[in-house]
Amino acid sequence: MGNSPKPQKINAPKGTRDLYPEDLLRQRYITNAWRDASINCGFEEIAGPTFESTELYSVKSGDGILSELFQAFSGKSEKEIEQVQSTGQAPYALRPEFTPTLARMYAAKSKELPKPCKWFTAGPYFRAERPQRGRLREFLQWNCDIIGTNSDGHGETMDAELFGVVVDLFRSLGITHNQVRLHFTDRRFIVRALLKYGVVEDKVVQTLNLLDMRGKINEHEFNTQALTLGLDVESFDKAVSEGHDTEGFLGANSIFFTDELEDVLGEEDSKWYRWDSSVVRGLAYYTGTVFEAIADGERAVAGGGRYDNLIELFGGPPTPACGFGMGDVVLGNLLDDKGLMPTGAQLMDAVAKPQASIRPIAFVVTGDESSDALVHTLVANLRRGIESQSYQSRGDRKPWDRDRYAVAPMHTRISYKSTRKVNKLHDDAKKQHARFFVEIKGLDQAELTNMDTRESLGEFSIDPTAANYVGKKIAELTS
Amino acid sequence: MGNSPKPQKINAPKGTRDLYPEDLLRQRYITNAWRDASINCGFEEIAGPTFESTELYSVKSGDGILSELFQAFSGKSEKEIEQVQSTGQAPYALRPEFTPTLARMYAAKSKELPKPCKWFTAGPYFRAERPQRGRLREFLQWNCDIIGTNSDGHGETMDAELFGVVVDLFRSLGITHNQVRLHFTDRRFIVRALLKYGVVEDKVVQTLNLLDMRGKINEHEFNTQALTLGLDVESFDKAVSEGHDTEGFLGANSIFFTDELEDVLGEEDSKWYRWDSSVVRGLAYYTGTVFEAIADGERAVAGGGRYDNLIELFGGPPTPACGFGMGDVVLGNLLDDKGLMPTGAQLMDAVAKPQASIRPIAFVVTGDESSDALVHTLVANLRRGIESQSYQSRGDRKPWDRDRYAVAPMHTRISYKSTRKVNKLHDDAKKQHARFFVEIKGLDQAELTNMDTRESLGEFSIDPTAANYVGKKIAELTS
Repeated sequence: MGNSPKPQKINAPKGTRDLYPEDLLRQRYITNAWRDASINCGFEEIAGPTFESTELYSVKSGDGILSELFQAFSGKSEKEIEQVQSTGQAPYALRPEFTPTLARMYAAKSKELPKPCKWFTAGPYFRAERPQRGRLREFLQWNCDIIGTNSDGHGETMDAELFGVVVDLFRSLGITHNQVRLHFTDRRFIVRALLKYGVVEDKVVQTLNLLDMRGKINEHEFNTQALTLGLDVESFDKAVSEGHDTEGFLGANSIFFTDELEDVLGEEDSKWYRWDSSVVRGLAYYTGTVFEAIADGERAVAGGGRYDNLIELFGGPPTPACGFGMGDVVLGNLLDDKGLMPTGAQLMDAVAKPQASIRPIAFVVTGDESSDALVHTLVANLRRGIESQSYQSRGDRKPWDRDRYAVAPMHTRISYKSTRKVNKLHDDAKKQHARFFVEIKGLDQAELTNMDTRESLGEFSIDPTAANYVGKKIAELTS
Repeated sequence: MGNSPKPQKINAPKGTRDLYPEDLLRQRYITNAWRDASINCGFEEIAGPTFESTELYSVKSGDGILSELFQAFSGKSEKEIEQVQSTGQAPYALRPEFTPTLARMYAAKSKELPKPCKWFTAGPYFRAERPQRGRLREFLQWNCDIIGTNSDGHGETMDAELFGVVVDLFRSLGITHNQVRLHFTDRRFIVRALLKYGVVEDKVVQTLNLLDMRGKINEHEFNTQALTLGLDVESFDKAVSEGHDTEGFLGANSIFFTDELEDVLGEEDSKWYRWDSSVVRGLAYYTGTVFEAIADGERAVAGGGRYDNLIELFGGPPTPACGFGMGDVVLGNLLDDKGLMPTGAQLMDAVAKPQASIRPIAFVVTGDESSDALVHTLVANLRRGIESQSYQSRGDRKPWDRDRYAVAPMHTRISYKSTRKVNKLHDDAKKQHARFFVEIKGLDQAELTNMDTRESLGEFSIDPTAANYVGKKIAELTS
């Protein structure tokens, strides 16, 4: 009608993707697994804007960050156009990461939010860099964060919970601890060692950045720069390599939160993580644990850590927090490489399978402090599910096989309240709309209550190998 | 560590949203309904980049569009920064709509894609305008498009299919035809009437824009502008108001695609649509049917139409196409206003309920042309499901009630092949990974075949009120 411009071919911007139906299903397979792992571990979904004020990023990282961002402005606002023309900088940026948005969202409503807040989100992020394998200019990222701690203020338990959700995600996708492992260290430990072995306080951030680059630059280059910064590399390496404080400068003699890791994940899952002093992470805001999920000893698939000062920086109350991010591109490549991505009708079925219940299915408590370890173990078992005999015994099993689970992973929560009064814990479960209340009583038994009907269903075993395993009973009742 | 900038409060950009857990669940409730309606109607999900080359939008609409866009550039590229500084225009734009991306994606792979392509997508879109109720600067939008036609080239059947998915979406959310109706007209009809009643060819686009503004400007203003454009308003109104060609200038005497609407949707659903010559849609690219879903006679909740020239404009082969878009903000407001948005545990359950199967459940065919109408009726019934007696008889029923369906809506497809050979149609079903093949034989019966096992399950009734209704049998087999 009227004007008919000439046909012309316009490609997608470099480093972005056109996803046709099969591509999209592959991506859904990943995002569904992210959602299920998060929800089953008690994280609630949130979302923020796709673009933010540029200063949200520069406040934390300085103006240097601007060259790594896609910047944006309204073509309707003369003021914004003038700003861009005169400065070359725009008022908005396409988000390169989620953490600043998270910090802002928490700071805005900190008073009315539960403590801790366990939040997840998955959406598009943007980086102004040269695209390469595993790195695009637009990609999806999954974030899980825990803001605040339980009432005893014990942050390390939260760090361990993060490890738990990452491990559950990998396990659900059929990835083993031989293929991916969580490499972790602790910024406090590393920083004290830097200070002890020659680096002055003002050079710590710069030295951390150098350590982060260590695997990517050659040894001579690294040593030259370390020398300039004053670091005695040999002594430093020796002091931090095992995570033990062999030199006695910390006043303690252990890897930072290994105890909590074992409490929360169970001894069986210790194969999934290892101290690795080469992991320091580039970002300036980490203050404690830092970790990366590393595939085949080289590719980082996820990364995160503790950032106890960030909420305050964005105007909220001082609040400890930790979190991690994982991108869809590297994870997709890994699944492809390991033969763990379904195709055709199997992909269709895998994507359409029932999602995790948003309502908590099981809410596990105990009134007895000495049973806390049992709570953690039962919670871990309920969240990971139980694989069926038929699946286990088969040779070529795939994570999307329909008979995989005898008891499917279920959304399971605990209380973060300090009280030991069971009726208070019951109130907490009710407030969170849980369907079944599981009270551990003694070493092997738990009482199961249907919270919708208030009916006690009797006592069941907390041992997953037992015939009257409580998880099996709940699965029957919810199927 | 090291530098500690001062705490400061940075808000979300104006017109964007921070979605906390309950907000997010409300949005999920909507996007899940979008997905289910699309998938059950045989649409496949795709996705494109969040930002595109600015010219992707200007090629179609001219540079005027630039002031309605958020524009973007890489802060790393000196070339792009220079361009923005010297021209005030950026190389990229945050997408304001999906259709240009869709046209580009189809054009890039037209040869290998099925005909027709039925695609849907849901994601964030951006507009540089003043935020107001129902309009934000960032919002989610759902798009369904049908590119190409079935083998007889009969585009109107595709338009009717679009109406079908919109109606199914509203019905699934508990919205009735008393609350929302599809108002439609046809650009060809309107344009011929404009040409007949005083408007010269060069002024047609301008006059269409004026007609689109008619409800928003005062009558005197409208009449003055119409006069300038040469339009005899009274005669034009009389000619188009009923959609009948009472003046005989079309050589036909009926509303354009009412026959197809009745064929595809069934007579029962005629309450859902009505001819309305005031609907012309602002966008220049429409070439045939245009429609808006209008709530309470005033608010447009969705809009779309036929755009037969657009694929060619983006470098593809000449291909007829049609589609529509719906935003999450207006739909959410409507659900709130009508008391159709669940809260608390009901919202949690509604969001976690099983999704539509990505694999087609039923694939309905007939070898006999005279049964084509029966195919459409059965397909419509399978897609909308059958509500249970207990639900129907209750007073305060809500669309998320667990007992709503005796037979839940199921993913149902037809073949778009011209062949009448049942074995060829069976091949088509197989290629699409359908689970059950339903061949209508005679007026009331259909043979049901399990495509995975190749087993014939016998003949069943195609009448939803019959005890041996084929849909009931399939629901039993897939539960």
